[in-house]
Amino acid sequence: MKLFSYWRSLATYRVRVALNLKGVTPDEVIDVNLHEGRQREDAYAKINPMKALPALMLDDGTVLSESLAILEYLDETHPNPPLLPTEPKARARVRALSQMIACDTHPLIVPRVREYLAGHYKVDETGVNEWGRHWHDVALKALETNLASSPETGRYCQGDQLTIADICLSGQGVGAAYFKCDTAPYPTVSRIIDECAKLDAFARAHPLKQPGAPAAS
Amino acid sequence: MKLFSYWRSLATYRVRVALNLKGVTPDEVIDVNLHEGRQREDAYAKINPMKALPALMLDDGTVLSESLAILEYLDETHPNPPLLPTEPKARARVRALSQMIACDTHPLIVPRVREYLAGHYKVDETGVNEWGRHWHDVALKALETNLASSPETGRYCQGDQLTIADICLSGQGVGAAYFKCDTAPYPTVSRIIDECAKLDAFARAHPLKQPGAPAAS
Repeated sequence: MKLFSYWRSLATYRVRVALNLKGVTPDEVIDVNLHEGRQREDAYAKINPMKALPALMLDDGTVLSESLAILEYLDETHPNPPLLPTEPKARARVRALSQMIACDTHPLIVPRVREYLAGHYKVDETGVNEWGRHWHDVALKALETNLASSPETGRYCQGDQLTIADICLSGQGVGAAYFKCDTAPYPTVSRIIDECAKLDAFARAHPLKQPGAPAAS
Repeated sequence: MKLFSYWRSLATYRVRVALNLKGVTPDEVIDVNLHEGRQREDAYAKINPMKALPALMLDDGTVLSESLAILEYLDETHPNPPLLPTEPKARARVRALSQMIACDTHPLIVPRVREYLAGHYKVDETGVNEWGRHWHDVALKALETNLASSPETGRYCQGDQLTIADICLSGQGVGAAYFKCDTAPYPTVSRIIDECAKLDAFARAHPLKQPGAPAAS
């Protein structure tokens, strides 16, 4: 199994956490430098025509892409510990929380979008950072409302079971830190992010712990 | 079961198609007018704090949100006809194709993003439409490459079985038409969209067939 990764990619972070939780170690981690635009070069576009990270190449050459699809695959093929509840409504809630992050928010602030804003609409650096903060804030507010008001929220997003929603929420927390969003107004979100950070599987997957990352300040 | 819907919402279109395919008819379809910003009003924000469509309220009052989470819920609770293959790698491919659309593309062109571009960055109507076309083109190119090069593509995205990927692809086709994208350079995408359009479950779910839609030109 080969993981195509970049230290800063939050979608890849999700897969790293899931691999750690499942006790699966890729044979190789291949760096695709997003800052240098390597994801748009032919070599990688042949692996993933969407030119996005992550991609997971299985031993038979099958390439999986899209972080949530990879998480579900890992959960189906390595069922312990499970990363989804068993009851359909609970599964739907976990997936919805995950998608509020991985569909409605993160795709808005990835490099290709920031670069298009800057290049095509001449939005300056301050404006691009405002964009990132704005969409983080919108999501954090909605996530806090959902998590704080639901009796299903426990130690983690869905009771006391760690799920893909926690993996996504934890990545959202890392993203919020990049964009210097204040997470203090979101106490439930912050509490769950802090719970996750205590776990070795999350700590080892952190962007700043990956090869190529700058030294933590 | 109550579906919160708007004729033009492509995420709601996905759920309408799935309900049709499963033979499930909501007891009520509640209109949330996106053009008038009703999704941001308190009444709806209490239903879905993300202030986005669709939402599906079950008979016990549970509210499901996020179209892909709803599709998986419907598939788990109404297994016939199945909308995902059974083999994990095939499921991962179907989910990845779906997410290329429902995560990487559609969230970029929804009303809240177009409104923020126009309001905050003073992008004019032409610029906002370019934005919509640009992200559609990026996705259509990647989808075509994936679908045209994979031996797993058949009559539909994954062999001859209709899946959530076809539902998402069909919605992408409707979106491409809104933004006047030329889909001729994407023959495999176009062929599958045309196959889906032949099916009653898709035709009945079309935005222009919903209450409140303008007359088709």
